[in-house]
Amino acid sequence: MNPTASLRERWDEYILSLQDEICSSLEALDGQATFREDRYRRTEANGGGGRTRVMSGGAIFEKAGVNTSSVQGEVTDAMRSQLQIQGNRWYACGLSLVLHPFSPMVPTVHANWRYFETYGESGKVVDSWFGGGADLTPYYLFKEDAKHFHSTIKTALDQFDEALYPEYKKNCDEYFVNKHRGNEARGIGGVFYDHLRPKEADDAERLFAFQQACAGAFLPAYLPIVQRRRETTFGDSEKFWQEIRRGRYVEFNLIHDRGTLFGLKTGGRTESILMSLPATVRFEYDYQPLPGSKEAELVSHLVPQDWVGMAE
Amino acid sequence: MNPTASLRERWDEYILSLQDEICSSLEALDGQATFREDRYRRTEANGGGGRTRVMSGGAIFEKAGVNTSSVQGEVTDAMRSQLQIQGNRWYACGLSLVLHPFSPMVPTVHANWRYFETYGESGKVVDSWFGGGADLTPYYLFKEDAKHFHSTIKTALDQFDEALYPEYKKNCDEYFVNKHRGNEARGIGGVFYDHLRPKEADDAERLFAFQQACAGAFLPAYLPIVQRRRETTFGDSEKFWQEIRRGRYVEFNLIHDRGTLFGLKTGGRTESILMSLPATVRFEYDYQPLPGSKEAELVSHLVPQDWVGMAE
Repeated sequence: MNPTASLRERWDEYILSLQDEICSSLEALDGQATFREDRYRRTEANGGGGRTRVMSGGAIFEKAGVNTSSVQGEVTDAMRSQLQIQGNRWYACGLSLVLHPFSPMVPTVHANWRYFETYGESGKVVDSWFGGGADLTPYYLFKEDAKHFHSTIKTALDQFDEALYPEYKKNCDEYFVNKHRGNEARGIGGVFYDHLRPKEADDAERLFAFQQACAGAFLPAYLPIVQRRRETTFGDSEKFWQEIRRGRYVEFNLIHDRGTLFGLKTGGRTESILMSLPATVRFEYDYQPLPGSKEAELVSHLVPQDWVGMAE
Repeated sequence: MNPTASLRERWDEYILSLQDEICSSLEALDGQATFREDRYRRTEANGGGGRTRVMSGGAIFEKAGVNTSSVQGEVTDAMRSQLQIQGNRWYACGLSLVLHPFSPMVPTVHANWRYFETYGESGKVVDSWFGGGADLTPYYLFKEDAKHFHSTIKTALDQFDEALYPEYKKNCDEYFVNKHRGNEARGIGGVFYDHLRPKEADDAERLFAFQQACAGAFLPAYLPIVQRRRETTFGDSEKFWQEIRRGRYVEFNLIHDRGTLFGLKTGGRTESILMSLPATVRFEYDYQPLPGSKEAELVSHLVPQDWVGMAE
């Protein structure tokens, strides 16, 4: 990277390289499908654009999206009221991924890392913040997988401050919830954080490094779980249950997910945003897993848990 | 009906008998599956309840819900701000149905008829209104079906006032739209109306009769289409397309449908509300039907059309 570049320029460059790295790793792991890339520009003049990458019909990944965008524009009334954004212009750049494996034994994963800036009349930065997170949505519970995912992320965060993992895990537990389903969690959580604002000049560098550490923990947190479960056998009933649970994923994303709804309502690229939806989904009236089944065991764990400290 | 009963009591009775009539007709037509009934009470004291009826795995209907509820409660702040409801207490009773056939040649249909009252401190009615409508969502376009559906409803409305069908059709065209998909309509429309307030004492009777005429037109508008298309052959590619389009149905219901969102966010019974979602659904990244195909023909008609006047 060019050491004299602005933080924004360096972040843009980092996000594109991160996308390349993640996509290469996923293609190598899948061994069958490759990512299709669509580049787009926003219609607003000088509004930036994105690089959407979606893989379909892989040996492991039935549908996987790893998208980046670097966008900017005028601050609108909707942004002022819904996002409490100040200033005249804004910039946002980030990577969002959602990976839906075909096998119900391999969990779905979601992650996102982003950076915002807003500018006053002079064009000077008046506010800036980082956000991000990663969370796991299994269809069958393997406690060692949940523990591995959380522990890997915790280790990355602990290097910066041991207070972060508990706080960001709590954010995640509170956010990825289907409130209309009696607060059933979407999955087994992870971490979620937003509005990490640099308080002093060198703080921005520390937060940039923090984002890199979090994003860097993603592949080590997820890929070993895929490797461990990819050969596990399953039948039609497990696939059925996966599609039922994918229905809950759709419900969360379309009813509650603030990023999805804000994107769709402010003219984001619909196909890029909705890459998050699983390929095949099932909605059954009042479906209840059998008491004592593996399916019921998963549901009973969809409330906040101490995954790191849990006995396997 | 008891002629001395209040309008509200008579409407409650009518809605239950309408549910019986529609369910019996659908069971007779399907010939294989029957409706499962779940009765529930709202947790709020004296809050009323509902009678949910869902049919699954029928010869014709893969998933069909015909629900009634008669509910009441205190007017909340959310109702005041989001629904502009005045008064201290409210009452709402209606029937909502969504029928998802298995065959992609048979269209999905949705209909709803409802009545609201609000009450002041003395318990006296301070406001009351009727609402309702019916709309059709085909997966393949048969112009004679669209014309039959619209014409049957128009005939029922024309008995009251010939100005109603054009106005209520326009409401429907404007409401059942996926704004995040470039204003693509959910289907080929129908009618939609709300806030029909009795202006004088005998007006309430006229509006009650209007609701009965609209609801009475439903089976004649829909069943002949089912009869005409139920034997039409189809294969995997037509089923695939149906599941893609069902994805748009899910998107509309979870992102835009005011009734669904208000119900879910105010503690309605989730399983009763989400009976509207199709059994199996597919979300493909950037799926585009082939130019000139039957699938593309459908999409090209998902903008307001003069179905009644259209050449078949």
